[in-house]
Amino acid sequence: MTTVVALGGNALMRPGERGTAAEQRANLRGTCDALRPLLGGDLVITHGNGPQVGNELLRQERAADEVPPLPLFLAVAQTQAEIGAMIETELAGAVGRPVACLLTHVHVAADDEAFERPTKPIGPFYSAEQAQTLEQERGWRLVEDAGRGYRRVVPSPRPLEIVELGSIRALLGAGAIAVACGGGGIPVVSRNGHLKGVDAVIDKDRASALLAERLGAERLVILTEVACVYRNYRKSNEKPIRELAAGEAEALLQELPEGSMRPKLEAAAAFARAGGETLITSSAALAEALRGESGTTIRP
Amino acid sequence: MTTVVALGGNALMRPGERGTAAEQRANLRGTCDALRPLLGGDLVITHGNGPQVGNELLRQERAADEVPPLPLFLAVAQTQAEIGAMIETELAGAVGRPVACLLTHVHVAADDEAFERPTKPIGPFYSAEQAQTLEQERGWRLVEDAGRGYRRVVPSPRPLEIVELGSIRALLGAGAIAVACGGGGIPVVSRNGHLKGVDAVIDKDRASALLAERLGAERLVILTEVACVYRNYRKSNEKPIRELAAGEAEALLQELPEGSMRPKLEAAAAFARAGGETLITSSAALAEALRGESGTTIRP
Repeated sequence: MTTVVALGGNALMRPGERGTAAEQRANLRGTCDALRPLLGGDLVITHGNGPQVGNELLRQERAADEVPPLPLFLAVAQTQAEIGAMIETELAGAVGRPVACLLTHVHVAADDEAFERPTKPIGPFYSAEQAQTLEQERGWRLVEDAGRGYRRVVPSPRPLEIVELGSIRALLGAGAIAVACGGGGIPVVSRNGHLKGVDAVIDKDRASALLAERLGAERLVILTEVACVYRNYRKSNEKPIRELAAGEAEALLQELPEGSMRPKLEAAAAFARAGGETLITSSAALAEALRGESGTTIRP
Repeated sequence: MTTVVALGGNALMRPGERGTAAEQRANLRGTCDALRPLLGGDLVITHGNGPQVGNELLRQERAADEVPPLPLFLAVAQTQAEIGAMIETELAGAVGRPVACLLTHVHVAADDEAFERPTKPIGPFYSAEQAQTLEQERGWRLVEDAGRGYRRVVPSPRPLEIVELGSIRALLGAGAIAVACGGGGIPVVSRNGHLKGVDAVIDKDRASALLAERLGAERLVILTEVACVYRNYRKSNEKPIRELAAGEAEALLQELPEGSMRPKLEAAAAFARAGGETLITSSAALAEALRGESGTTIRP
């Protein structure tokens, strides 16, 4: 059985933390312990990179007078390695099989409508004056974020193909646990026979569902902060959902507010339509959920 | 025939350049064109990361008040991805076969004597006062660099094993061109069954020779700024060397000043002792050198 497990942001960084390597590794240790029931099978680990890429972009800006900032797609690449190295050093040795982190690019369409309407806020906050300069000098799009200043927004295009799919298969075939598709993958378009990195970010749950589908994985596990999906979340009539068919998941999407659960359920619904099963749960509840006693399962 | 090709610093960054992504990609395009004769066989591309890791460390420092600097081994990881992504986007599509960049860790000995005497200068320059603070607060070792200020020095331990060797083999077996061991690899030691990143840098030529040996590669190609190794380099009696046996290379090492050619020749001599052939040349002279008309060949 092949499983793709997508680690959420809190696998590495928790509210109130600054994100030192020591903090991230301590959090990761707990997550890796929770993954134990999955470590025996074919496994690909994917992960988000929101806080890490935010930190990296801030570093790029603060040193911009001395060393040239890298384009966003290379900052995404950097976070794949930063996080991948932490996951790999944590797991390797402890699991008795190789762990391999592969730099992963993901094709997006150059004419994806997301490029017309960048919506994903990313990186540090700027003053109105700085924002104007950045728009002029770098062609960025910035929007005001209530009271906190201006922030760059980038497109979040739909993932189409995993460039390194065959290599991920080869790593699994060789018995390795693969770490791939970090931060949703490095977005690329094809141009004149080359790949070209583009300044965008891909939702990591969508990319993980695509990867699971293309790999022919039986199972996608999306780890998040809550043990399962709820109807009327945080209201007096809140009700945990244990199981959904693809159609039910799609119907539920309409009820859900924008936010972190929606892309997860969208990814799960897409994977269900492709014949795969998704489990949405927390790392604390994972063992129970794998026994069918917690979590939300979205079935084909 | 399996070849490991090690790209030198100038494959990406040239003197006088600031190292923008556009500059690096333009330089890389030339290098990748030069690699064309090697792209048909089993090929692993390794590369240095000196200027890139220097830039990254500077970024970490300039933003240190706002986001925690990462330990050096994670900055090395970041440069593997930064450079790997540039190599991969340049080659992929153009070569008609997959290209895969694997995050690579390299085992070093915790008791390597290099840890007693850190010698490798790295990152930005500091004032005497800053240097003292950094020594106290972070336990760094800093040394004065004639007139330019103080600079951190880190150990450069001997590479012992390539952690991801089996995965690199699997990628080659699947027909991919592998990009691996960037910046000499992320140095790790074993501790309590886990891998632990250490703040050190591994010489990329030594790591490349080790990788070539462990892979059973027939050939190591070290690309540098000059077409071949010279006796009495830049003196009136300068003389190009076309061929050396392992013993001759070791004897020549004694004559060479410290500097960039010495680790290359050491790596070549070590690989020759292990039965492999090394070609030291420039990317401009590579095609000629592969025809036996240029470069320096170090034979077993």
